Amino acid sequence: MTTAKTKVAVVGASGYTGEELVRLLLAHPNVDLVAVTSRQLAGKSAAEVFPRLAHHKKAAVLKFSDSDPKQISQEAELVFLALPHGLAAEFAEPLLSAKARLLDLSADFRIKDPDVYREFYGHDHPAPHLLGKSVYGLPEIYRNEIRGAKLVACPGCYPTSILIPLRPLIRRKAVDRGTILVASMSGVTGAGRKAEVDYLFSECNESVRPYGVPKHRHLSEIEQELSLLAGEEMTIQFTPHLVPINRGIITTIYADIATNVVKMDPAVIFSGAYGQEPFVRLLGDRRLPDTKHVAGTNFIDVAWKVDKRTNRIVVMSAIDNIVKGAAGQALQCMNLILDLPETAGLL
Amino acid sequence: MTTAKTKVAVVGASGYTGEELVRLLLAHPNVDLVAVTSRQLAGKSAAEVFPRLAHHKKAAVLKFSDSDPKQISQEAELVFLALPHGLAAEFAEPLLSAKARLLDLSADFRIKDPDVYREFYGHDHPAPHLLGKSVYGLPEIYRNEIRGAKLVACPGCYPTSILIPLRPLIRRKAVDRGTILVASMSGVTGAGRKAEVDYLFSECNESVRPYGVPKHRHLSEIEQELSLLAGEEMTIQFTPHLVPINRGIITTIYADIATNVVKMDPAVIFSGAYGQEPFVRLLGDRRLPDTKHVAGTNFIDVAWKVDKRTNRIVVMSAIDNIVKGAAGQALQCMNLILDLPETAGLL
Amino acid sequence: MTTAKTKVAVVGASGYTGEELVRLLLAHPNVDLVAVTSRQLAGKSAAEVFPRLAHHKKAAVLKFSDSDPKQISQEAELVFLALPHGLAAEFAEPLLSAKARLLDLSADFRIKDPDVYREFYGHDHPAPHLLGKSVYGLPEIYRNEIRGAKLVACPGCYPTSILIPLRPLIRRKAVDRGTILVASMSGVTGAGRKAEVDYLFSECNESVRPYGVPKHRHLSEIEQELSLLAGEEMTIQFTPHLVPINRGIITTIYADIATNVVKMDPAVIFSGAYGQEPFVRLLGDRRLPDTKHVAGTNFIDVAWKVDKRTNRIVVMSAIDNIVKGAAGQALQCMNLILDLPETAGLL
Amino acid sequence: MTTAKTKVAVVGASGYTGEELVRLLLAHPNVDLVAVTSRQLAGKSAAEVFPRLAHHKKAAVLKFSDSDPKQISQEAELVFLALPHGLAAEFAEPLLSAKARLLDLSADFRIKDPDVYREFYGHDHPAPHLLGKSVYGLPEIYRNEIRGAKLVACPGCYPTSILIPLRPLIRRKAVDRGTILVASMSGVTGAGRKAEVDYLFSECNESVRPYGVPKHRHLSEIEQELSLLAGEEMTIQFTPHLVPINRGIITTIYADIATNVVKMDPAVIFSGAYGQEPFVRLLGDRRLPDTKHVAGTNFIDVAWKVDKRTNRIVVMSAIDNIVKGAAGQALQCMNLILDLPETAGLL
Repeated sequence: MTTAKTKVAVVGASGYTGEELVRLLLAHPNVDLVAVTSRQLAGKSAAEVFPRLAHHKKAAVLKFSDSDPKQISQEAELVFLALPHGLAAEFAEPLLSAKARLLDLSADFRIKDPDVYREFYGHDHPAPHLLGKSVYGLPEIYRNEIRGAKLVACPGCYPTSILIPLRPLIRRKAVDRGTILVASMSGVTGAGRKAEVDYLFSECNESVRPYGVPKHRHLSEIEQELSLLAGEEMTIQFTPHLVPINRGIITTIYADIATNVVKMDPAVIFSGAYGQEPFVRLLGDRRLPDTKHVAGTNFIDVAWKVDKRTNRIVVMSAIDNIVKGAAGQALQCMNLILDLPETAGLL
Repeated sequence: MTTAKTKVAVVGASGYTGEELVRLLLAHPNVDLVAVTSRQLAGKSAAEVFPRLAHHKKAAVLKFSDSDPKQISQEAELVFLALPHGLAAEFAEPLLSAKARLLDLSADFRIKDPDVYREFYGHDHPAPHLLGKSVYGLPEIYRNEIRGAKLVACPGCYPTSILIPLRPLIRRKAVDRGTILVASMSGVTGAGRKAEVDYLFSECNESVRPYGVPKHRHLSEIEQELSLLAGEEMTIQFTPHLVPINRGIITTIYADIATNVVKMDPAVIFSGAYGQEPFVRLLGDRRLPDTKHVAGTNFIDVAWKVDKRTNRIVVMSAIDNIVKGAAGQALQCMNLILDLPETAGLL
Repeated sequence: MTTAKTKVAVVGASGYTGEELVRLLLAHPNVDLVAVTSRQLAGKSAAEVFPRLAHHKKAAVLKFSDSDPKQISQEAELVFLALPHGLAAEFAEPLLSAKARLLDLSADFRIKDPDVYREFYGHDHPAPHLLGKSVYGLPEIYRNEIRGAKLVACPGCYPTSILIPLRPLIRRKAVDRGTILVASMSGVTGAGRKAEVDYLFSECNESVRPYGVPKHRHLSEIEQELSLLAGEEMTIQFTPHLVPINRGIITTIYADIATNVVKMDPAVIFSGAYGQEPFVRLLGDRRLPDTKHVAGTNFIDVAWKVDKRTNRIVVMSAIDNIVKGAAGQALQCMNLILDLPETAGLL
Repeated sequence: MTTAKTKVAVVGASGYTGEELVRLLLAHPNVDLVAVTSRQLAGKSAAEVFPRLAHHKKAAVLKFSDSDPKQISQEAELVFLALPHGLAAEFAEPLLSAKARLLDLSADFRIKDPDVYREFYGHDHPAPHLLGKSVYGLPEIYRNEIRGAKLVACPGCYPTSILIPLRPLIRRKAVDRGTILVASMSGVTGAGRKAEVDYLFSECNESVRPYGVPKHRHLSEIEQELSLLAGEEMTIQFTPHLVPINRGIITTIYADIATNVVKMDPAVIFSGAYGQEPFVRLLGDRRLPDTKHVAGTNFIDVAWKVDKRTNRIVVMSAIDNIVKGAAGQALQCMNLILDLPETAGLL
């Protein structure tokens, strides 16, 4: 007996996230990638556009199209939107009406509050009535909600690297919520495949630089989710830095240990929260994360140190920004929606 | 009329700092590099060892020797020690007895308190009686003391990138001293020219990683100097990260704005402190530092942002760890000792 | 029905090739990795040694041992030797006597002629009587011989990138054999995981350099194999260069088109030779190879240009030196030996 | 007595070559940089545009303008054109009419034959009557001609790295002219500061790739100059490769030793040609070049190996493509024109 494969499409597949989605979906045992779209690449095959896939028989015949949402909804049951912010919302409405399941990788449906969206993204939300309908696609927090979701807002890469380590500390009230600071370092694919001078090789190589200080857009979703976890408004400090690697984010989180905590035992807290998680690897307090150990994988490595001198905990995580921070996590959500093993196509 | 040039020597010139010292000293208009030593390189010329200097007539005849302190003191009036920690102290005593001026680039004379030295370096200090005699070689803080110093303990690279930005904030009591956190990112030359697997190209390329968490050795001198500035014991949080660039440190500092500060005006504070400093470039709150803009120079670039949401200040600095963080700063100190223009040989 | 998996071992698994073998074998559907050895790592688990595999249940229990050949032969039916040159021969003899199938990744069994071995490797061959028994493990040339082989000498990375493109041109007598020149560029993993100053990050980053000029060791096997293909002694020019990437080799080959060739049609020649090869991707004369498109894969990408101005053909190839140039190709050979699909565990 | 400094301008100073010219000219002891132009940067100061120069008093007041040739000729006696190909010719004519000395860094005046220009650049030359008036700005060949030149066509980066090593071999008839092959590897600044996807960090990092095969534009000037040296038409093979470094070119040249040469002695040939050259460093046949040893300098390092097995000579060179391959060499020419020491501002 062969089970029918679910038909899926990737809309806006020309960037790094789109390419990774195509690569992962072509290798996935339970889905059939039936459509990839891109205005600028229409007519070319996936094999032409992505030379890594040149040998792939399916990639050789799968042509990029410039399909509109209606066409896409006729071809695919489940659609990944890898479009720029703002554009995703335009595609979402007709696709949802046509009963397609949506996994959106833009920021368009991450923020519940249209005012916060406007504050951080600089314009009104194009489809505010949909905001309440999306589920935030972080399986380690919203696994059950994702299972039944029609519209999943896949988290940003930084938020993924921050929320997973912070969640158990917040939930357990182990840290003083007002003292959380985060320094992150991201590889350059995080900036997308955009032709901008700032991201040329010769501008990024031999360069490390902070950016988005003090109010990077991702703060909006980080604080929204932390506040939901805490049950009260939370504000944190967050500084991203651009580092000359292709893939990877290192996030280093600092927080004062809560005053009522007599003896901080992070091993108990993290094991309790993530001992069974398929993609969370707990390094404990003896090993430290390194982007090279997660590159190309859907894992998040989490390590910690309690500093008795300062009564703080330092939690460090590593992810691949394109996999666990984008395409891989979206597949993880898809697996949940389709009731497949959560690790299908991801190990 | 020609002024006699001061005779200088570099002891332990085989590493990255030693090489940079040789390069800078050969180009310096007022000194004569008369000796370079290294046990393993004895007999070779500077031009052979450092192919960048292959064309340099002086480098072609300047041979590495395995000289002992006595010989060195007969040749040179001023000596740079670019030796590993622990070994510098052995050379310092006889050289000081022989009236040589010393600029030590190791950690051996940075820590005033032998107990702190033992805590952070894991062994007793080899020459504790000399600790009180050294001057910490950070011209932006100790300019006058350096001028008359016989023994200068040149600061570590991280401390340089941290102390210069923090000093005016501490002095002006602008920040809450208990809330200071520092995340730094350093290039790989910071690990020295040591044959260790951890620093192989294929281990560092496409890798970002925290290390020395939570108690890196440099904390000892950072906290010592901050405490001196504050007039009270200070403890900070500090996390270094290794990033795949050759040269450069980015340091991002966070601190709560002190509660009694009505309106934080960092521009006034930093301009007041560093407006006349030849090697401090204040970027203000509109531009952010980038290692590529200081690589190969003795500058420290300093930028800041006040975050009204969190009532914190974020201060960011960039230096070249081998120049302002080591060899260049040592030359700056030498210029002060020799009563030369402070920028001689450094612009 | 479950087919029993073949038990395999990796001897000398501490380097980059060993790590890649472990990673590939753990994921292979038809083999069971029962032993990994390394003198220095004995007692540690594969998961500890290779943090990328930290999540892997098998890796967590698979301990490195310091087993001798006898022990290994009792555990495994097929053994990969990832040992330094010279040492492999010591292990080969007892393992072969114990009826283990051997896949040797060193240079020890690549050269048929002990005199050539001595000329290029500087010492007598440790087991010259075995030289005649090995099969050169390049499936694109020796597929049938590999199937029945007891001892496979897996090719070097440069030879793989050179022999595959050159073979059809030599066989078809399409080029003038005396005019072949090869310029190759290799990533730094090619130098192994050795703690040597030359391969430190800060020595390789921002550096490109030729080395091994004019007589790199790999010339011995390249010329041996070309001579066998040609049916006459062949001598070529070969210059490797070290470039700052982790993985990948670009090889650019130049040859005069043979005088009796009226119209060179490389598309016909290459398609005829490799149209059915699972790991050879022919880019034709419109696209050019790029290491990033083969990194992490077992493919070799081959492109060509006929230069009418000079009557030469330029053939360019790209491989991942650790996969198609080492571990992946060894698995490809293993698949042949075990009568498995040639691509098993490699796509 | 103070000698009046020559007033110079840089037209089109927004790219990597322009930036390097500005940096070098600001530091040059005998010239006064009075104007920098760029349509897009007009109004900004050099210090703003180039943060490396932020401390420089002159850079702070020197504003980019959008001046036309007439204005420029009123301000400056000597003008560097760092414009794209095609545009330089437009500026050249009015500037020459206004008696300015011109150093053009584009390809516009390198090719003497308008037909060759059209063949390689794809359009008619915009000012063919000027072609005969330019001097090819390679001091190692045309030192005397450059001294009196009104219009200097500064060589391309690849041609510089190829012509200097080949010249003495051609002149001495030491090699068989029909057998010359060149493989070059260039850093990414060679592609200019253009916002193109191909040169994004994530496209170039972990990537090595040939390009411009088989007929890169620079072949036109290489073959023109070699033919002039040889006194007969010469055709060579040339393949450039893009490698992930910022600065630097490695060129590896192969040629058959001429049949009438009994004993090839490259040391005699190269020393005879370049023993007195200030910027040619001869490494001999024991050392090999490395881009990191010339980065940021105006040197060309040249090494060679005679391969007795193949009767070929392999000559290897290293330059910084932005310095000796562009801005530095232009300054070297300027020094000759202004009768200054040839190394002024370049050591």
